[in-house]
Amino acid sequence: MISAQEFIARQDRLLAQCLENSVCLIPAASMVTRSRDTEYLFRQNSDFWYLTGFNEPDAWLILSNHPRYGASYRAMVVQAKDEQAEIWQGRRLGAEAALAQFSLDEAFELSELEEALMETLQNHDNVYFALGENNAQDSLLTGALDALRQAPKASLAPHAIQDVRPILHEMRVFKSACEVAVMKAAGEISAHAHKRAMQFANPGCFEYHIEAELHHAFAMEGARSPAYSTIVGSGENACILHYTENSAQVKDGDLILVDAGCEYQGYAADITRTFPANGTFTEAQREIYALVLKAQESVLTTLGPGSTLNDAMMQSAEVITEGLVSLGILSGTLADNLAQQTWRDFYMHGVGHFLGLDVHDVGDYKINGEDRPLKPGMALTIEPGIYIASHHNVEDKYKGIGVRIEDNVVITATGVEVLTSDVPKTIDDIEALMKGA
Amino acid sequence: MISAQEFIARQDRLLAQCLENSVCLIPAASMVTRSRDTEYLFRQNSDFWYLTGFNEPDAWLILSNHPRYGASYRAMVVQAKDEQAEIWQGRRLGAEAALAQFSLDEAFELSELEEALMETLQNHDNVYFALGENNAQDSLLTGALDALRQAPKASLAPHAIQDVRPILHEMRVFKSACEVAVMKAAGEISAHAHKRAMQFANPGCFEYHIEAELHHAFAMEGARSPAYSTIVGSGENACILHYTENSAQVKDGDLILVDAGCEYQGYAADITRTFPANGTFTEAQREIYALVLKAQESVLTTLGPGSTLNDAMMQSAEVITEGLVSLGILSGTLADNLAQQTWRDFYMHGVGHFLGLDVHDVGDYKINGEDRPLKPGMALTIEPGIYIASHHNVEDKYKGIGVRIEDNVVITATGVEVLTSDVPKTIDDIEALMKGA
Amino acid sequence: MISAQEFIARQDRLLAQCLENSVCLIPAASMVTRSRDTEYLFRQNSDFWYLTGFNEPDAWLILSNHPRYGASYRAMVVQAKDEQAEIWQGRRLGAEAALAQFSLDEAFELSELEEALMETLQNHDNVYFALGENNAQDSLLTGALDALRQAPKASLAPHAIQDVRPILHEMRVFKSACEVAVMKAAGEISAHAHKRAMQFANPGCFEYHIEAELHHAFAMEGARSPAYSTIVGSGENACILHYTENSAQVKDGDLILVDAGCEYQGYAADITRTFPANGTFTEAQREIYALVLKAQESVLTTLGPGSTLNDAMMQSAEVITEGLVSLGILSGTLADNLAQQTWRDFYMHGVGHFLGLDVHDVGDYKINGEDRPLKPGMALTIEPGIYIASHHNVEDKYKGIGVRIEDNVVITATGVEVLTSDVPKTIDDIEALMKGA
Amino acid sequence: MISAQEFIARQDRLLAQCLENSVCLIPAASMVTRSRDTEYLFRQNSDFWYLTGFNEPDAWLILSNHPRYGASYRAMVVQAKDEQAEIWQGRRLGAEAALAQFSLDEAFELSELEEALMETLQNHDNVYFALGENNAQDSLLTGALDALRQAPKASLAPHAIQDVRPILHEMRVFKSACEVAVMKAAGEISAHAHKRAMQFANPGCFEYHIEAELHHAFAMEGARSPAYSTIVGSGENACILHYTENSAQVKDGDLILVDAGCEYQGYAADITRTFPANGTFTEAQREIYALVLKAQESVLTTLGPGSTLNDAMMQSAEVITEGLVSLGILSGTLADNLAQQTWRDFYMHGVGHFLGLDVHDVGDYKINGEDRPLKPGMALTIEPGIYIASHHNVEDKYKGIGVRIEDNVVITATGVEVLTSDVPKTIDDIEALMKGA
Repeated sequence: MISAQEFIARQDRLLAQCLENSVCLIPAASMVTRSRDTEYLFRQNSDFWYLTGFNEPDAWLILSNHPRYGASYRAMVVQAKDEQAEIWQGRRLGAEAALAQFSLDEAFELSELEEALMETLQNHDNVYFALGENNAQDSLLTGALDALRQAPKASLAPHAIQDVRPILHEMRVFKSACEVAVMKAAGEISAHAHKRAMQFANPGCFEYHIEAELHHAFAMEGARSPAYSTIVGSGENACILHYTENSAQVKDGDLILVDAGCEYQGYAADITRTFPANGTFTEAQREIYALVLKAQESVLTTLGPGSTLNDAMMQSAEVITEGLVSLGILSGTLADNLAQQTWRDFYMHGVGHFLGLDVHDVGDYKINGEDRPLKPGMALTIEPGIYIASHHNVEDKYKGIGVRIEDNVVITATGVEVLTSDVPKTIDDIEALMKGA
Repeated sequence: MISAQEFIARQDRLLAQCLENSVCLIPAASMVTRSRDTEYLFRQNSDFWYLTGFNEPDAWLILSNHPRYGASYRAMVVQAKDEQAEIWQGRRLGAEAALAQFSLDEAFELSELEEALMETLQNHDNVYFALGENNAQDSLLTGALDALRQAPKASLAPHAIQDVRPILHEMRVFKSACEVAVMKAAGEISAHAHKRAMQFANPGCFEYHIEAELHHAFAMEGARSPAYSTIVGSGENACILHYTENSAQVKDGDLILVDAGCEYQGYAADITRTFPANGTFTEAQREIYALVLKAQESVLTTLGPGSTLNDAMMQSAEVITEGLVSLGILSGTLADNLAQQTWRDFYMHGVGHFLGLDVHDVGDYKINGEDRPLKPGMALTIEPGIYIASHHNVEDKYKGIGVRIEDNVVITATGVEVLTSDVPKTIDDIEALMKGA
Repeated sequence: MISAQEFIARQDRLLAQCLENSVCLIPAASMVTRSRDTEYLFRQNSDFWYLTGFNEPDAWLILSNHPRYGASYRAMVVQAKDEQAEIWQGRRLGAEAALAQFSLDEAFELSELEEALMETLQNHDNVYFALGENNAQDSLLTGALDALRQAPKASLAPHAIQDVRPILHEMRVFKSACEVAVMKAAGEISAHAHKRAMQFANPGCFEYHIEAELHHAFAMEGARSPAYSTIVGSGENACILHYTENSAQVKDGDLILVDAGCEYQGYAADITRTFPANGTFTEAQREIYALVLKAQESVLTTLGPGSTLNDAMMQSAEVITEGLVSLGILSGTLADNLAQQTWRDFYMHGVGHFLGLDVHDVGDYKINGEDRPLKPGMALTIEPGIYIASHHNVEDKYKGIGVRIEDNVVITATGVEVLTSDVPKTIDDIEALMKGA
Repeated sequence: MISAQEFIARQDRLLAQCLENSVCLIPAASMVTRSRDTEYLFRQNSDFWYLTGFNEPDAWLILSNHPRYGASYRAMVVQAKDEQAEIWQGRRLGAEAALAQFSLDEAFELSELEEALMETLQNHDNVYFALGENNAQDSLLTGALDALRQAPKASLAPHAIQDVRPILHEMRVFKSACEVAVMKAAGEISAHAHKRAMQFANPGCFEYHIEAELHHAFAMEGARSPAYSTIVGSGENACILHYTENSAQVKDGDLILVDAGCEYQGYAADITRTFPANGTFTEAQREIYALVLKAQESVLTTLGPGSTLNDAMMQSAEVITEGLVSLGILSGTLADNLAQQTWRDFYMHGVGHFLGLDVHDVGDYKINGEDRPLKPGMALTIEPGIYIASHHNVEDKYKGIGVRIEDNVVITATGVEVLTSDVPKTIDDIEALMKGA
């Protein structure tokens, strides 16, 4: 659990990076309709969650470093307490309780939103906001600015709309100890679920059964939702990168690629494992699997402060190319293949991505056009893969094999800490687990 | 499974009810963002699904009864086949396959949408459409109409935008034999899940554990999503009608109210059961429970063709009022209590609602201001309840008791068929099941 | 002046052509910003003006033929009386006075607009409206419909949005005796202005001086605004069809083409005359001018009930082609030139258009794809022209000659009545006027 | 005429005040519909005109101070040359000619607008823009920013949207010598028109006749449009501050208040004179007129660098109050009346406003909440008035008298230069002019 102090410290760090006389506006997410009058399970806006840990819809966080407020000013606009609405739709915190719980200087009710914006915007030089994310929220801001510009005989409107994302997202790139602890919990829950999926899977079951096992395992440990749509691809379905239909029946001899991670306290895990439906890899599957694993382990060994994600990409591509050449899947010399990046036919995606409150987490991968060196506290996935579809011009035994192995890591002072090691990934360990050993 | 023929028959029935020279436009749903670049599991628009059974986003169904087409014209606009997009995002049917699969006269790709609208709209007198559901779709239609109105020297635009919903939603009110079969399957899957929830529950578990059991049970039988946000309310949480936090720990002595139904092939089930966490009702719980059950059974016995939902409401209210008076929860005479509708303090919601592709399904409850008589083929829920919160002025033993019992029925020629009878609802049956009998 | 009775008769004729149980919504125009806080002179929406003769912005006319109202219902939403606003912005009629002046059943103030729409829309089958003309007005209607659709347990919203324009614009095609009288007045005012322009013009003056004379002449007879942007094109500027810069200095030897008409009581005149800056046509100018005049007179002689505007087009094209061939400007036979429509190089526009409250007035030119026969009461312009720019491959003496002669007519039982005959158009008459005879 | 050099100098001064690595986007105005397919005479956006002197619609000026461009970068997006469009709608400059005429580094055609924005925005830190003025232009900017934010793996979008108005409008507050010369010309043209109006007016004429005289006088000297809607208020109409109906017949004994100024080369004049319809002031009219004139002259004598508009307001209010007290229109002591600001009943508006490209010109009247001291180069109006309507509780002889006297001035090193002195304002001079002396 992230402490109230940590949320306030984040708000302070954000404010400290803003120009003088600035106000930050961070709106929460709204409920999203699924069909007619039913809604999807509420998912808070990541930036709002990062700064508050508050899970109600439609709130706004308002921060200011204007000297008129002394050191700083923090306010929130929240749904009002309302007995009838709460009987029908569920409990709400309300303005009064929010004041105390979030150590606010002021708390407004939603019906006062426009007024609160007008009042807090005026006489600031800058407003920090994520323009372009949400039309309704954009209109609220631009409407308030317009009204302030009409102020009789002197404009009270801030002169600049600063994008709050570069600062806030750079903060989110570096995980605190508390965040790493939560991400580790997310990784463990997800790892347990993957183990259960391996134990459950068998020829004849349907892909969605495996999904059901994963989601149940997530939920029983307190993660009510996956962090992203779960992928369970058996056979050639594994070659569709974001295959989420999960509707096919698993066949004997299939590999099953499972890419699934829970969302725990807002944080994503993102694990991929690939295993044989019947518990035993074929020779061809072994060859490909071993290659992907070698690529991943090679990256995990080398990765650390100062290296870049692009280094990891190239390293994994090299291992994979070397292997594909030696298996005869790629012809020609290693050097030529590397030069022509022939691996892109089989390994079409990147080696990994930032991970955090979002599965493809925020943050710049390049700074001033240069790949940025990794630093302690960054969290990412490492997930090389090889996908051989039936249209590929290779020996038949390799067709329909799609393998990805993905773990989550945090960069440490000396290398990486793997957050998802609780689920086996060597061929022996997988086969042992599936055999019930 | 609904057959291709049935979908076409529905399209024909819709067209036959349109005025002459009319074109119908029925757009599919779009993907909905959950956070950053992740999306919620796709849920098709119910009207589009009802007419096509096609589960891809962003498609449009176009139907016309213009004589220029002969008997009728059916077309669809669908996502284009695209090798790269499909590797990344999943398989698509494509225009060519759609043509055959849906017996279309024409199939367009999404990039041709505006053109297809322009072409098919022109020279019709009416366009049937659900204006006001979706801004982007509204703009596409009004943009096309505007362009046709500018036609040199003579307008080609339909002169009327007819609301397609009254016709289409009236069709959806009456379930076909196939639909009843699917709804029965949905009811059975949901009933199994409720039984499992009862068997699982125990003091000390968390509400979300029970939710996890339900969702797993749904998914293992092929229902990947609940039809609406699952409610698991223990103790006084049961008095919040749409309580979906499901975060509390269940206490010994609590009643647990579970309102959950799966979505199966697009159709919703909607079951509520209330049971004691420890497997045995207290005396006070028994009294209240028995009363709600009596009200529900009384309605189920009487309901049938010719009766109205309002009759059922009044009947259930009478049973409940009588019981509350005799328990001393309401004081004064029965007649006075009925006259003043004092039951509304404890039974705040309606006795039921239409059920189908949506949990609160479409359809008018009144016709020309009069309650409409029920007819065979209508599907609905019957769900009386009593909710006694701590603020109610009653004996302590009744506080924190919330009971709802909800089943799904279809009106038959002579009465009702209950679709959700697989899960116990008498006190004895519940206690027996929970004791593992 | 159009009488109050005529406006009400128009409203009744509109309502009588609507389907049963219909409500018509006709919004007025709004003020339009010119720059910062200044606005253009208010111009009422033509449809609203046609039905009310009321010149205030932001009003709505509401008509219904629902039986609940008896014979018919008429209401208006108008700006409220407001002492302060009226000191600053000008007088307003107000709801109370509107009730009497327009024989309304009900009058609302603008602040009650949404309510008034909700109230009057409900329980109608159709709403007649001009969707797509104005975003803000569209939103008001669709917002009200949406709200009515949410009505508890039964929709109160009309099921069809009928386009009011086909009915209303067909009504506007046929001018009443009163309208013809007003259009005649507009034609006379404009004719006087053209005469003054001819008398004023001289080599050395600027085109905008001539524009100033015209506008002053309009305004002194009560027409504060031209019906469209005045065109004063000297020399080759006459070959730009909608030349409105009017910034050049007139040169000796130039022809000057003046296309200008006033707006009088809402109705447009639309006259074009072409005359020599120095008062005397050159030989080449005479040749071209005579040809255009012959074409125009030929059409005016023939035009009448049963003929079509396309007939007139072809007739004028034939006269012009014949002339251009005989002048050697077109080579080849007459037949070949007609077959190839070579006249389109010199005569690029249509022979005329409907005229009324709009200069390019509403109304369909084709019915069921066929050119519609003219009928008594239709008002139109007849305006053939020849434009020879410097890029044309002709003798130098013809270059820079642009001639158009345009009059306004109303179709009578036997032919046409010319509304704009007060301004000379023969070469002799023009030269005589310009010489001060 | 403003020289090309001055426009470029303005652009450079704007850029110099922007933060480093900034791009400025200044869009032109668009054509505005008057009715159906006719448009109002085009009026350029004042800011765009101030920076370019270019009078075509839909253009965009793009300026950058990014070092990648060297000293500075200037580009424009303009309507493309298009032979057909130009025959129909008028000549266009086109991209090629714009390049030369405006000394641009790059010129784009309108169809390249989105591309041009994308290209020029990227890698800047700030974009200066007037967000909130125009929805379509706002969307173009936010759309381009959004697209740049999606740039793979690193955002190229500027992080701040700076309001360009504070800088640009502060520049516009101070008129250059060239601007003063143009404003003087505008003042002279307007003064001539007012003299003509006085000479023309007589009992029996209509207010709109006087308007016609003014507009004709404007136009004959090259000012095709008034700078704002002309006010001609006879009798009590003078008490409606923005009376623009101008529809009443002038009566013998009326005062006529004329508030009218031309727009010349984009700049506004704004003159008010009040004179007797029959050429001779009544005694009561004289008393009021003399008082307003005294107030105005008192201000004009005192005004200059260092004084404030609020000083002028108070000074004029004091003169007027003193006079009203001595005429018995206000009762009580002068001190009490001043303390209670009783003059606000008769003198409801401010004493003046900034003047320039807009009649109520841009610029802050207060700086940090304090009235700003006037400085050389500022242009403003001085326009005290007294309005006695029939509802006022005064002697009958004063009722229906509305007087305003307004001149335009530029602050000089030592006082003011009056730009509109060509039109008489003493009682004797007015009566002499009207008698034809």
